Amino acid sequence: MSINSCNHPSNDVFSVPARVSRESRPDKTVVNVRGIMVGGTDVVIIAGPCAVESSEQLYETAKAVMAGGARILRGGAFKPRSSPYNFQGLGEEGLRILKDISSRTGLPVVTEVMDTRQIEVVSEYADILQVGSRNMHNYPLLKEVGMQQKPVLLKRGMMATIEEFLLAAEYILNQGNEQVILCERGIRTFETSTRNTLDLSAVPMLKHLCHLPVIVDPSHGTGLNWMVPAMSKAAVAAGADGLIMEVHYHPDEALCDGHQSLRPDEFFQLMTDLKKIALAIGRNISLPEPSLV
Amino acid sequence: MSINSCNHPSNDVFSVPARVSRESRPDKTVVNVRGIMVGGTDVVIIAGPCAVESSEQLYETAKAVMAGGARILRGGAFKPRSSPYNFQGLGEEGLRILKDISSRTGLPVVTEVMDTRQIEVVSEYADILQVGSRNMHNYPLLKEVGMQQKPVLLKRGMMATIEEFLLAAEYILNQGNEQVILCERGIRTFETSTRNTLDLSAVPMLKHLCHLPVIVDPSHGTGLNWMVPAMSKAAVAAGADGLIMEVHYHPDEALCDGHQSLRPDEFFQLMTDLKKIALAIGRNISLPEPSLV
Amino acid sequence: MSINSCNHPSNDVFSVPARVSRESRPDKTVVNVRGIMVGGTDVVIIAGPCAVESSEQLYETAKAVMAGGARILRGGAFKPRSSPYNFQGLGEEGLRILKDISSRTGLPVVTEVMDTRQIEVVSEYADILQVGSRNMHNYPLLKEVGMQQKPVLLKRGMMATIEEFLLAAEYILNQGNEQVILCERGIRTFETSTRNTLDLSAVPMLKHLCHLPVIVDPSHGTGLNWMVPAMSKAAVAAGADGLIMEVHYHPDEALCDGHQSLRPDEFFQLMTDLKKIALAIGRNISLPEPSLV
Amino acid sequence: MSINSCNHPSNDVFSVPARVSRESRPDKTVVNVRGIMVGGTDVVIIAGPCAVESSEQLYETAKAVMAGGARILRGGAFKPRSSPYNFQGLGEEGLRILKDISSRTGLPVVTEVMDTRQIEVVSEYADILQVGSRNMHNYPLLKEVGMQQKPVLLKRGMMATIEEFLLAAEYILNQGNEQVILCERGIRTFETSTRNTLDLSAVPMLKHLCHLPVIVDPSHGTGLNWMVPAMSKAAVAAGADGLIMEVHYHPDEALCDGHQSLRPDEFFQLMTDLKKIALAIGRNISLPEPSLV
Repeated sequence: MSINSCNHPSNDVFSVPARVSRESRPDKTVVNVRGIMVGGTDVVIIAGPCAVESSEQLYETAKAVMAGGARILRGGAFKPRSSPYNFQGLGEEGLRILKDISSRTGLPVVTEVMDTRQIEVVSEYADILQVGSRNMHNYPLLKEVGMQQKPVLLKRGMMATIEEFLLAAEYILNQGNEQVILCERGIRTFETSTRNTLDLSAVPMLKHLCHLPVIVDPSHGTGLNWMVPAMSKAAVAAGADGLIMEVHYHPDEALCDGHQSLRPDEFFQLMTDLKKIALAIGRNISLPEPSLV
Repeated sequence: MSINSCNHPSNDVFSVPARVSRESRPDKTVVNVRGIMVGGTDVVIIAGPCAVESSEQLYETAKAVMAGGARILRGGAFKPRSSPYNFQGLGEEGLRILKDISSRTGLPVVTEVMDTRQIEVVSEYADILQVGSRNMHNYPLLKEVGMQQKPVLLKRGMMATIEEFLLAAEYILNQGNEQVILCERGIRTFETSTRNTLDLSAVPMLKHLCHLPVIVDPSHGTGLNWMVPAMSKAAVAAGADGLIMEVHYHPDEALCDGHQSLRPDEFFQLMTDLKKIALAIGRNISLPEPSLV
Repeated sequence: MSINSCNHPSNDVFSVPARVSRESRPDKTVVNVRGIMVGGTDVVIIAGPCAVESSEQLYETAKAVMAGGARILRGGAFKPRSSPYNFQGLGEEGLRILKDISSRTGLPVVTEVMDTRQIEVVSEYADILQVGSRNMHNYPLLKEVGMQQKPVLLKRGMMATIEEFLLAAEYILNQGNEQVILCERGIRTFETSTRNTLDLSAVPMLKHLCHLPVIVDPSHGTGLNWMVPAMSKAAVAAGADGLIMEVHYHPDEALCDGHQSLRPDEFFQLMTDLKKIALAIGRNISLPEPSLV
Repeated sequence: MSINSCNHPSNDVFSVPARVSRESRPDKTVVNVRGIMVGGTDVVIIAGPCAVESSEQLYETAKAVMAGGARILRGGAFKPRSSPYNFQGLGEEGLRILKDISSRTGLPVVTEVMDTRQIEVVSEYADILQVGSRNMHNYPLLKEVGMQQKPVLLKRGMMATIEEFLLAAEYILNQGNEQVILCERGIRTFETSTRNTLDLSAVPMLKHLCHLPVIVDPSHGTGLNWMVPAMSKAAVAAGADGLIMEVHYHPDEALCDGHQSLRPDEFFQLMTDLKKIALAIGRNISLPEPSLV
């Protein structure tokens, strides 16, 4: 007597979906974000606050992360929060601030879109559309960002298998948009000492199976700012094409996720350490002149 | 030295959100679905196919489940599928079929809404709006169904804690819609012999903490039609206010989830067995005359 | 390109081990514990304190559970505790108390054995050898209890798959001891509102795949005494051949697991409720005369 | 109304046990294995086959890993296998082979002890006593190795929280043996594309909380030999004090775990790559002369 597993669509021996499969495109995809190449030799660092709180907050943080070597600015305008009573983001006002700070600093910006009805307005302001962990299974949203001309940052669902993650990306590519960056951001397990369990094995696995660039979010992946440096180094060593990190100029006053945000000085130190790891594996992180070791 | 858990919003000692809390309403909420009372003494059975495939399929299945004692008809028109290449449902044509069969049989219907843009059209046809497991964290969708005048069937996310499930319901109540039915449908664990792990302890836990009716989906919870009877009986014994089950007149030909669907004759037998359990715990399942034992 | 799962020994399509397989013995195994038949028509209730604390505590609790309808007494002498600083049980003194109370009440006793070196002494005192959840993967212990002439109560590891659970039982049968009772006691998941997640689908699954009796431990499975009644009823409705429950005459003073122990009066009420469920599914629970409804 | 989590002994705000706590010993523990210092500046590599199969197999593999830079030899004599029908190891004959090859190569050896009755004999042959993942909760075994004068390699249970892992180590230290090396080897999650989910965040977390050295097993942690290099580099970058890896001179013919074993040439290449990572974070891996880059 034998029993078939039915936990996964194809009995756990899964076929990599056609359009994301490495076989479909032996050359790796490099996503071009206004001249910043994600998936090339350089490891690309995305940094910024969890949420856009004010023009001053974003500008100060943007200047700091740019000085440290970040190439893309992150910041949430529409925030998915577990409780309806938590800060939900500044909405369109947050988008305007993002665009303004992007113009003043030259940094492209990535921000989350949570609803098909928001895609048009978010696309006006952002350089990368982020689909968050809670929406990885939101198929109408995936199809809709698949119809845009913008790069998409797709975060792994906190309880999504690698197969489901690839299928979510396939939804986007299947609509014609091949500018997709995958992001491992921690999965939910029984362990509670970290906010999530950062599954770094997802990096070599995804790069083995598909042609898309893969980045890592050590801030959400651990939920602990003191652990971000160790896990960032590990992610780069594992082969990540980039990192997305939370940095706040005053973490203690952050309206969300302050406990997982780095201060600017911590970010500076980390960047010089990360560059050494990148060089050790034959890659690079281009740092601004004054920060060069 | 001690370490705080940061896995959960409030360090694992959670406060039940205000509007769903039992303290806010000592009398239990009873959801009235065109005269069918969910949360009263009777255990209410919702049955039907995974997806609406054709008028004939739905009509034949609806007649069968009604004869067996089902009080509400289920059937998907918009289907969330892991792969973009799987059958995605008949869409609005499916909604029209649902409405037509509802008129011909008198059974109210429940169907899933996946996108804020679909709410208006789905509301025209359906008696209950279902928010599926993959959308339990889709806050714009929760807010929008919270603004409708229709009962909402909210399924627990496959990766959602009890706390997050209650917070998702709170999003709906917070917009003014208190006609919410909670549904445990299996969570994702390491076990692979069943599709999900049906967490029946969620039934007494949710009824302990909040005033909303709680039903169970043994079809998705197990993924195995032969296991549905045992787990349905267990769910009723645990105190569930209802069940939602997949029944198909020809499971082998179903376009989705045939392996977890009951045949009409299996459903008939199960209903007489369930009535005995319901009576044993002081509740009831009202069966049509010819089906009475 | 396809990828094989390697999470499970045989790629998730598992063969039920030969000796436990239902095919190897179409008649179900009934384990005879000094005349109490586990796996027959009667649902057998095992009850008693988490740990043997004193002769008085055990005697008072034993009389109470016997009056309520329990047929076998439980009580730990060697306790596996996560911390070395927690109460570790009375050891051999606890075994002597168990034997004494067994003689005075006529109830057979089950107690845990944690170490191959303890098997000889535990066998002198106990009627059933329990292998606990933490030792389900302890193969030398499994082999050794397989060489005894005593019934074995094998608890599922808190993170063991159904396949691994069956393989653990196979280790015992393979040494010649076929008197094995399987016990579902909750698995570890991401959910934290209950101590474990009681996987009741394990009951029909195990009974589908193997010929051994299957019981459920709702006390460890939930960790909450107020939830034990609902989950006990659900377990019986799901087809469990028995239950093992923690009852303490003064739960608030228990040296371990008081928060998941029932008081005698709660146990009495539950037993009459459980008998109704048992009758509703064509089984029975034989209650002592004064407790008959 | 609020609800307390009961998933963890101390409501998820756990106290680090006294003897393993960093506060109890601000200087990190360095474990001395016949002159090899685990927990010092050098990252120490332990390598060898899953199981000792023959004198030739172990000798050839030992020479290869020593030439590559491994400092300690691993090899199982008593093997914990999920099925009673799988190869169970050579037992004492395996121990004799280990000791012999250790003498011929000068490499200290680590091997698993599964039963309190085996400790005496294993201690005669081995330099480090390994307590495997399946026995992390085997408290009699922990106490017994705590009474030995040998270093202990304690693997994290595949289902153990960080807190439980530290408590298991505390059992050993509490008996007087402070020569304990902790090993992260992957935890069980819902993900099935890898054998386990290697939880590298355990490295900084354990080093933050306790004074013991922490190593990583990328072979069991991933179950995929092609993934071992990426995860080894990540582990060193995350701060691991060492690695334990499976290397087999003919992986295709291995009696166990061949699919996760490296070939000697792959191991050589990996060692030179790992040295670069070690240097990039201010540590070192001392390679034999001919292997120096």
